[in-house]
Amino acid sequence: MNFPSKLIEDAVTEISRLPGIGKKTALRLALHLLKQNEAVTEALSLALTRMREEVRYCKNCHNISDAEECSICLSHRRDKSTICVVEDIRDVLAIENTNQYQGLYHVLGGVISPIQGIGPEELNFASLLERVSKGEVAEIILALSATMEGDTTSFYLSKRLKETGVKVSTIARGIPVGGELEFTDEVTLGRSILTRINYSQE
Amino acid sequence: MNFPSKLIEDAVTEISRLPGIGKKTALRLALHLLKQNEAVTEALSLALTRMREEVRYCKNCHNISDAEECSICLSHRRDKSTICVVEDIRDVLAIENTNQYQGLYHVLGGVISPIQGIGPEELNFASLLERVSKGEVAEIILALSATMEGDTTSFYLSKRLKETGVKVSTIARGIPVGGELEFTDEVTLGRSILTRINYSQE
Repeated sequence: MNFPSKLIEDAVTEISRLPGIGKKTALRLALHLLKQNEAVTEALSLALTRMREEVRYCKNCHNISDAEECSICLSHRRDKSTICVVEDIRDVLAIENTNQYQGLYHVLGGVISPIQGIGPEELNFASLLERVSKGEVAEIILALSATMEGDTTSFYLSKRLKETGVKVSTIARGIPVGGELEFTDEVTLGRSILTRINYSQE
Repeated sequence: MNFPSKLIEDAVTEISRLPGIGKKTALRLALHLLKQNEAVTEALSLALTRMREEVRYCKNCHNISDAEECSICLSHRRDKSTICVVEDIRDVLAIENTNQYQGLYHVLGGVISPIQGIGPEELNFASLLERVSKGEVAEIILALSATMEGDTTSFYLSKRLKETGVKVSTIARGIPVGGELEFTDEVTLGRSILTRINYSQE
């Protein structure tokens, strides 16, 4: 594309560095900003810069936070004996939105992926072991994606955590609520039979 | 969504003001920026602010420009007797990318749309008449979208331009190159028959 203006070209180049945004979308966004009041662009720029410069990570759970410790770790209402291990901050938000979990979190910052060169050392794993070693934790819930990398990480974590003697569980995999049996893939369906829930025990 | 950080929340709010970007995508983009080097966010903010503050519009054709006149208007290679009227700057880029047009442009800045309260006065129409009145223009090519608003605008412009005596044409509507006849909608197909091209005259 030949841009009539270097300023536009620069803006389009920078916007299209964002994931999932190509040159055409970037141009549409740039032209949209040009049509709006200057204050809109200013507010956007400022919010981005401030976020990038000032945001901090909770020293306990690595969740995003405005202070040294995040609001979840600081809250007196949370059950400090349970830690839910997740891949990133979006997963914390997703679980928080369910209103079903009252414990603390631990954000790994990724999953083990040999292809991308991410091993356990690249993840926030040492600090998890440290939290466990303090003796206040009764259960670790692994809430990682049901992908190859997620499963590998869960397997690795469960093995390493077994040494500490803490109870380790993982979130259930099965057919999603509202999902029809015949359209569920066979691996999921197979797993849901193997890990069936015993009504008579409840 | 409950955000663990006010800074993230502000950034997500500002990003999701952009067209076609919802809260979830905005959060994904914000977290992406957090994972990148600080320089990425800085470059993005700066490019956006500079673009919004410093970009100018060509005094002749209202195309985006870094100077008082755009590079197309200033070029000695362009045919100054033809003006192609388009809705916005993206259309200029689209036509430039075809490499089929050597004339000048005139960016209307929109199309007539009574529902959105856009009449001819809101568009860069007076300046088009002024350019025509200088007597150097031989042909005006209307290249507006084939929508109701685009057609209305074309009709209005062709009527008003008729008074000036300049030749007015519009880009061809028909089946797109590569398009199959049976999948072309009937209105397009009907028009393509009515405005058929006479081979024997060529």
